[in-house]
Amino acid sequence: MKIPVAIIGVGLIGGSLGQALRRTGKYRVIGIGRQRSKLRQARRLGAIDEGSLRLADAAKAKIIVIGAPVDDILPLARRLLPHLRPGSIVTDVGSVKQPIVDGFARLAAKSKILFVGSHPLAGSHKTGVKAANPNLFRGSTCVVVRVGKAPVNAIAGLWKAVGARVRTMSAADHDAAVALTSHLPHAMAHALVHVIAGRRDRNVLTTLLAGSFRDMTRVASSDPEQWAQILRANAPALTRALAQFRRELNRLEAQLRSPRLRSHLRHSHNFRRPLFNAL
Amino acid sequence: MKIPVAIIGVGLIGGSLGQALRRTGKYRVIGIGRQRSKLRQARRLGAIDEGSLRLADAAKAKIIVIGAPVDDILPLARRLLPHLRPGSIVTDVGSVKQPIVDGFARLAAKSKILFVGSHPLAGSHKTGVKAANPNLFRGSTCVVVRVGKAPVNAIAGLWKAVGARVRTMSAADHDAAVALTSHLPHAMAHALVHVIAGRRDRNVLTTLLAGSFRDMTRVASSDPEQWAQILRANAPALTRALAQFRRELNRLEAQLRSPRLRSHLRHSHNFRRPLFNAL
Repeated sequence: MKIPVAIIGVGLIGGSLGQALRRTGKYRVIGIGRQRSKLRQARRLGAIDEGSLRLADAAKAKIIVIGAPVDDILPLARRLLPHLRPGSIVTDVGSVKQPIVDGFARLAAKSKILFVGSHPLAGSHKTGVKAANPNLFRGSTCVVVRVGKAPVNAIAGLWKAVGARVRTMSAADHDAAVALTSHLPHAMAHALVHVIAGRRDRNVLTTLLAGSFRDMTRVASSDPEQWAQILRANAPALTRALAQFRRELNRLEAQLRSPRLRSHLRHSHNFRRPLFNAL
Repeated sequence: MKIPVAIIGVGLIGGSLGQALRRTGKYRVIGIGRQRSKLRQARRLGAIDEGSLRLADAAKAKIIVIGAPVDDILPLARRLLPHLRPGSIVTDVGSVKQPIVDGFARLAAKSKILFVGSHPLAGSHKTGVKAANPNLFRGSTCVVVRVGKAPVNAIAGLWKAVGARVRTMSAADHDAAVALTSHLPHAMAHALVHVIAGRRDRNVLTTLLAGSFRDMTRVASSDPEQWAQILRANAPALTRALAQFRRELNRLEAQLRSPRLRSHLRHSHNFRRPLFNAL
């Protein structure tokens, strides 16, 4: 008997999860979306077993994954909860966890619906189910956030089944960590583009862009709407991360006229080297 | 009759230039280096026609390219100049131009040796003639800096012959531009690595590194010795670039709690898109 999983929002992440879960042979995937054509496409691409336009059909599943952008998660959860049976477990795939965990706790305070937060650290600058890839999570990390007495195992098992390494941590620890490892880099990339875009001589400067600028701004090609939501939702932690980054920029600048600059750069060079297999 | 070009320092840039010049059929390349084995390797790889350990052999050429790291250029030029015939044209490949142009003007004040600064915006995180590639400059930009009455054409012709687009500008304009387009990105990458490296929980954080962090720190894998030289040599312009970048970081941070964040990110997203053919 396959475990029924409902995925609300079958885009890049939801669609990749659906494809990967179906391939395990252990899950049956109900895709819920707002457009019939997208659900048909998701089915054609092997991301779902059945599609539905009705949120109420999530009640067919024991596990419900909200595969929506950060700002849509809580509004969706609010409409979803009245349909679910007690004991249902809801998770999400949002890149920020504290506001979602807090919001869900308020919404579900009087129900027997359980919530476990998820953040699969996998993705692409591409969007939509057409970019879905059943191997998207293979070898990636997925953070799972325990909320109250919710059974983490069912959700951890879901992500392990699709090849992710699962790490459990608190929402606060998660948000502080990704502020440094992901949200700060995105903020830096956009600020760097604005430095060039805001200059009168930008047309000369753009002829002199080197590979370093290309690499350092690549993540500015991510969807600006989704990233505005993420950065705003994690504003407190990102503000702290920005303060740390400014201190490091100041430290580097202070060494620009010092012979210590070389060892300072060598330290970061050496720290980074083992972190990534390829460049 | 082929034009003789001496390349002093046959590494990645000098070696690639040698290979590309030789392929045009119009240049004869004399490689000058400090290690017999490296010169043999350069010859085997088609980067030079003949090798020499003696700086004096640069006098066989009309055009002399100093293919050395930034800090070595002026010391090499000082030893080189007494050997050269009047009318010889010297160029370099350094990533910073004002200190080199000024230094050369002092060194050559009483001679009839001409100097034209070059900065080919091409490279790789790899080093050494073994990584040389005759197509390295094809489609890239090379900045050429006019100094006094030196004949820019001979040097511009050299770079055009190997497929580069040549832009002529002043040393000051060059240094201000690359401070923004290249040196600032390198400084940012190192500062970002230091943010993570300096934290007690770095071992947890490194398990949560996303593709954005990988991309945003890639240039920290460049040679730290060479980059310390470049950043120090261009410290005044880099300091101004850092100030601009801080203003943009502040502007972004000020919008973290504002609905304007989305359009701010969309602006940088849209500005970047046409700059690079691929991501």
